[in-house]
Amino acid sequence: MSRQISRTILLAALVICLAGMAGLTHGHAQISQPGVQVPNKTLLDRLGYPADAKLLIVHADDLGMARSVNAATIKAFESGLVNSGSIMVPCPWLPEIAAYARQHPEADLGLHLTLTSEWTPYRWGPVLSKDRVASLLDNSGYFYLSEAEAASKAIAKEVEAEIRAQIERARSFGIQPTHLDTHMGTLYQNKTLFEILLRVARDQKLPIRLSKEWMASRDYLPSILSPGDVAIDKIITIDPNVTAKGWAKFYTNSIKGLQPGVTEIVIHLAYDDEEMRAATADHPNWGAAWRQRDLQFFTSGAFRKLLKENNIKLITWREIGKMQYPG
Amino acid sequence: MSRQISRTILLAALVICLAGMAGLTHGHAQISQPGVQVPNKTLLDRLGYPADAKLLIVHADDLGMARSVNAATIKAFESGLVNSGSIMVPCPWLPEIAAYARQHPEADLGLHLTLTSEWTPYRWGPVLSKDRVASLLDNSGYFYLSEAEAASKAIAKEVEAEIRAQIERARSFGIQPTHLDTHMGTLYQNKTLFEILLRVARDQKLPIRLSKEWMASRDYLPSILSPGDVAIDKIITIDPNVTAKGWAKFYTNSIKGLQPGVTEIVIHLAYDDEEMRAATADHPNWGAAWRQRDLQFFTSGAFRKLLKENNIKLITWREIGKMQYPG
Repeated sequence: MSRQISRTILLAALVICLAGMAGLTHGHAQISQPGVQVPNKTLLDRLGYPADAKLLIVHADDLGMARSVNAATIKAFESGLVNSGSIMVPCPWLPEIAAYARQHPEADLGLHLTLTSEWTPYRWGPVLSKDRVASLLDNSGYFYLSEAEAASKAIAKEVEAEIRAQIERARSFGIQPTHLDTHMGTLYQNKTLFEILLRVARDQKLPIRLSKEWMASRDYLPSILSPGDVAIDKIITIDPNVTAKGWAKFYTNSIKGLQPGVTEIVIHLAYDDEEMRAATADHPNWGAAWRQRDLQFFTSGAFRKLLKENNIKLITWREIGKMQYPG
Repeated sequence: MSRQISRTILLAALVICLAGMAGLTHGHAQISQPGVQVPNKTLLDRLGYPADAKLLIVHADDLGMARSVNAATIKAFESGLVNSGSIMVPCPWLPEIAAYARQHPEADLGLHLTLTSEWTPYRWGPVLSKDRVASLLDNSGYFYLSEAEAASKAIAKEVEAEIRAQIERARSFGIQPTHLDTHMGTLYQNKTLFEILLRVARDQKLPIRLSKEWMASRDYLPSILSPGDVAIDKIITIDPNVTAKGWAKFYTNSIKGLQPGVTEIVIHLAYDDEEMRAATADHPNWGAAWRQRDLQFFTSGAFRKLLKENNIKLITWREIGKMQYPG
């Protein structure tokens, strides 16, 4: 590697690092690749918004995972306050949410690429033939329970084949995905997996869940990101340490503290019902009560009021995708 | 084929036919094969009961299919009035019911061998790698919606491989099946499929759901059944033409009319809840309300009283299996 190229990469890493720590930068990923010019227009500008605009995507994960998740998320979509979501193609309730997607072509639905199956009484496996993706399966033939195990065992070419198959299957069900993200963050676990996500997303001309904050934490990113890749500014998601009592306060403070730029709040919706309680019986984090609390807050008048009072405008991945891949 | 052998087969078919029409015979299948003597002990006798004993298996199908099915059936087992059931290995709630099976080794749990996936919003596919059982899958990669379509498309060797894999998978989950039957009767759809079920069941030393009434309707059976195969006398299952109002009456009359011998009542349990209603939204037969009605009747004091008043004794497939395959 030439000295000139090394210096460019180092500089790019430094810029990201400082930006992340300061929490101040917004707009398009300030990432350079050797010989590629760093774009200097912010994401807000490229989206046609002024520099002080606070844009928010309210994103529900895990569609297709369970009936309770589908029902609660569709209800939240109808409130207009939750405006984006992503679908788990390998899960058994896929056909129900695919029917919703076909009936609501305007809905901002992406794919929640799935390589894990975390609920012990209720599980799922790959879209591809099991013998083609053996490295993705635990001893019982389902996806691994945890993202760490999945990431450590996965063979790259099997991951790529499986996630391409999930996208193809979604399209065959009439889903036109607007973006990609990944269940339990599995494809963000290491450089190899993230490169696969990036390559597949570019091929599919779809934006991915990527924040500048997260980018600042991964020193390998400058070598694989290019100026065409779009990162939003911040991703907010509630922490398991927040108590049920502190739920609304956490979100209220997060929304009040929103900075100009593009933020995604990642939430998990379901009813605290029998199906969900059974599925998550040994999994209180992201469990039934957790999801009902998210549903309650994000369909509330209080949330609507907060958006208005803080001059926050909802946008979707559809708009980001159109900007990233015009035409 | 020699004239002697042809005559033996013809005679056997006639015996079955007459027995079925008269509804009078009970006990072991009166089937002969060339050169094999017809056993003359009735099933009741072989089980150690007098000739006037009325024995009943109250059997809940579809365990593992949905949370609602698992929860309702486990509740019914606890009542002591429903005393047998069978598990669908390919379904997503298998791990929950497998855990129940491990915790209740005394429970009479068989396998409900599955080659169909009939609920449109919520579906499942094979245990084996999809490319090994392509003939079992519809265009969307799930099992076919109907038993007729599954039976007409299935390649025999793929069926056999898949059902053997389902049994093996059940055992790997700690389930020790006491019997075999098949979801939506798929393996009873034609001679080829039934022969597979029979061969696998004999290999596994497990009894199968087989009634003398049904045997009388299939003229190919004498050529494939042998004296070692056990048939119970009658299988009762409610018809979609029975109205909700007539539900209890149908079962009450069935129980009052029970004849000496071994009968199985095949029922389908679940709660009429959100999960079940969504799953069966376009499938009212065997749907959510249907299953709740079954649950209500078969856990009722009225059913308990009927059993007592009509001197009916509950038995299980475990006892039949022990008799059929001693040791």
